[in-house]
Amino acid sequence: MSPSMSEHNSPQPGSTAQSAKGGLEGIVAATTGISKVEGQTGRLIYRGYNIHDLARSTTYEEVAYLLWFGRLPNAQELKQLKEQFAAERTIPEEVMTILEALPAATAPMDALRTAVSAWGAVAIQGTPTIDQAIALTARFPVFLATFERLRKGKKPLTPLAELGHAANYLYMLTGQIPSEEHVRGLNSYLVLLADHGMNASTFTGRIVASTESDIASAVVAAIGALKGPLHGGAPALVQDMLREIGSVENAESWIRNAITSGKKLMGFGHRVYKTTDPRAEELREMARVADPDSFKMARTVEELALAILQELKPGRKLYTNVEYYSAALMASVGLSGDMFTPTFAVSRVAGWTAHILEQVSNNRLIRPEAEYTGPMDLHFVPLEQRS
Amino acid sequence: MSPSMSEHNSPQPGSTAQSAKGGLEGIVAATTGISKVEGQTGRLIYRGYNIHDLARSTTYEEVAYLLWFGRLPNAQELKQLKEQFAAERTIPEEVMTILEALPAATAPMDALRTAVSAWGAVAIQGTPTIDQAIALTARFPVFLATFERLRKGKKPLTPLAELGHAANYLYMLTGQIPSEEHVRGLNSYLVLLADHGMNASTFTGRIVASTESDIASAVVAAIGALKGPLHGGAPALVQDMLREIGSVENAESWIRNAITSGKKLMGFGHRVYKTTDPRAEELREMARVADPDSFKMARTVEELALAILQELKPGRKLYTNVEYYSAALMASVGLSGDMFTPTFAVSRVAGWTAHILEQVSNNRLIRPEAEYTGPMDLHFVPLEQRS
Repeated sequence: MSPSMSEHNSPQPGSTAQSAKGGLEGIVAATTGISKVEGQTGRLIYRGYNIHDLARSTTYEEVAYLLWFGRLPNAQELKQLKEQFAAERTIPEEVMTILEALPAATAPMDALRTAVSAWGAVAIQGTPTIDQAIALTARFPVFLATFERLRKGKKPLTPLAELGHAANYLYMLTGQIPSEEHVRGLNSYLVLLADHGMNASTFTGRIVASTESDIASAVVAAIGALKGPLHGGAPALVQDMLREIGSVENAESWIRNAITSGKKLMGFGHRVYKTTDPRAEELREMARVADPDSFKMARTVEELALAILQELKPGRKLYTNVEYYSAALMASVGLSGDMFTPTFAVSRVAGWTAHILEQVSNNRLIRPEAEYTGPMDLHFVPLEQRS
Repeated sequence: MSPSMSEHNSPQPGSTAQSAKGGLEGIVAATTGISKVEGQTGRLIYRGYNIHDLARSTTYEEVAYLLWFGRLPNAQELKQLKEQFAAERTIPEEVMTILEALPAATAPMDALRTAVSAWGAVAIQGTPTIDQAIALTARFPVFLATFERLRKGKKPLTPLAELGHAANYLYMLTGQIPSEEHVRGLNSYLVLLADHGMNASTFTGRIVASTESDIASAVVAAIGALKGPLHGGAPALVQDMLREIGSVENAESWIRNAITSGKKLMGFGHRVYKTTDPRAEELREMARVADPDSFKMARTVEELALAILQELKPGRKLYTNVEYYSAALMASVGLSGDMFTPTFAVSRVAGWTAHILEQVSNNRLIRPEAEYTGPMDLHFVPLEQRS
């Protein structure tokens, strides 16, 4: 996200310069066999497979299997996993009471965080397992779709076991069997976002797991991190920006104005990618097909923004990021703006849980240092003598 | 600091040596003016004040003020803060419904995590503020005492505005005005544990805050991290160990047996302290006064364990840590074992929120790197062709 990443400084413990900089940039916090993000070349790899192949030719369940087990499933293994997903699409009575108790104005991301915490309280004990990862991943869309209907005063729907993960989510939101096109679009989105190296939410989940806490605590923590606009909380802001720009004619002056007045353009720039995010490329093509009218506007704004960023901020390497077309894609399958980030979580929970399992398989408590910059050796004065 | 700190390694993205070690030992993740942990000399400083002075002469509210505002309050400021604490001791109806919905078998730490998440969903919006920090800190004992009574089939109690933080917690658990001795003991415990540099839960909270997420999300994440036995989840295990040892006579053979068979002694060793934890010294004296009979056994086991660790693991610098006498102290004021870690959270939430406020005051997204160790360039085979 921020441009200063390109400096690639390698911090020294105790070095003030580094500490002031913060953000752990360029610090290797863990080894992982789950995914690789090549920021300079714009490649994303899950367990050795290029994201472009996966986005075009797999289901979300296949990719979740890949992330958890380290290899793609065969047809029989995938069938079993899908059956397990379908069997886990339940909400315990206590958690349903809790979803019903939340006010309709609750942000769906907060409802998801609370439901997962409550579900963990009821259902999770012991060291993280793949079965727990499956149980959690299968339930994310169930919690969300149930809350979405409750807050609109509608009756929650029973899941359909014959539907895959993406299709059942859309079904439980709307009560309609979704079109193949919508299922394909949402499925590809879920595949593309399922993991992404040591991002802030994944790192958060791994730290929690490194204390030997449980998988629900780690996932709840990751949800809280994903919520932030600097991480997963911004896709709806892209839509807000496009709405504010209003028309293709207005775009150039709006963008110039925004950049020169120090306003942030939503959907551009990434801490790691110094070229186009490969996920944005896939999402762009999907958005083009899904909703040609909205796409035209989004594409024009993108091209203008890239050209003007190049002109006004040369060398800053600000490219289209994954959020830019995520918004368009999610809107095209019928999701409302405040469901974008929770739907990102529906995808990323497979990656979170894969990382949590990897962390506990060879654990060491993640506990960095801080550099203290405050006063020392202050003389303690009792309350009565303080003025 | 950890021994590796002295090496002053400067990790490079992709450096195997650093990554293999893991745990971010010796890596400065942030600068802070809140607290300083001197691992070699066994000193702990809050905002320039030595923990020994604070533990003996301040109330928890005073220390929370110190952590949040950077200086000790005068009498008028402390009075105002105490009034604000008392005013915040409420539970919204929705959160009460949620606490009532949780089964009696729920771990209090999971109940706290869920209640704080639900409260955040109902009450928290926008950038973290000191008022939000106060509102959260004031409510931790209220949520816990309410759940403690609900799970025992008792009616939750209304807080007493005239009681301080520690006293009101004990009152809301028992319905009795607590003895001065119990209040003093619990208050000192709460002061001693309120902050501790860049520990795993504080770091977790700062990462969540660094995404520009909200204070409740950050605190919920920190609760999940504190739950782990490698962080805050172990004080009850010290009691289990003492119970298992059973008698002073049995202690030496039990300890030798445990160490030689590779079992971990609960309450000894710390990632940062390479001498006695200064908090353990304070807690030891408090435990001595609070319950002389239990103390005798605990002290004998401690002395034996230190001597045998020195003999069998020379050079490992394993000293008594904060958990060893935390258990004794908390038991002496009437808390049950599964309330020890939640009560640690009652204390630490002041530190968490101080760190969250410090993080957002000069924010940069915390996002490290990972070193990918998995396969590359695998050829994608479609599902139908996989065997």
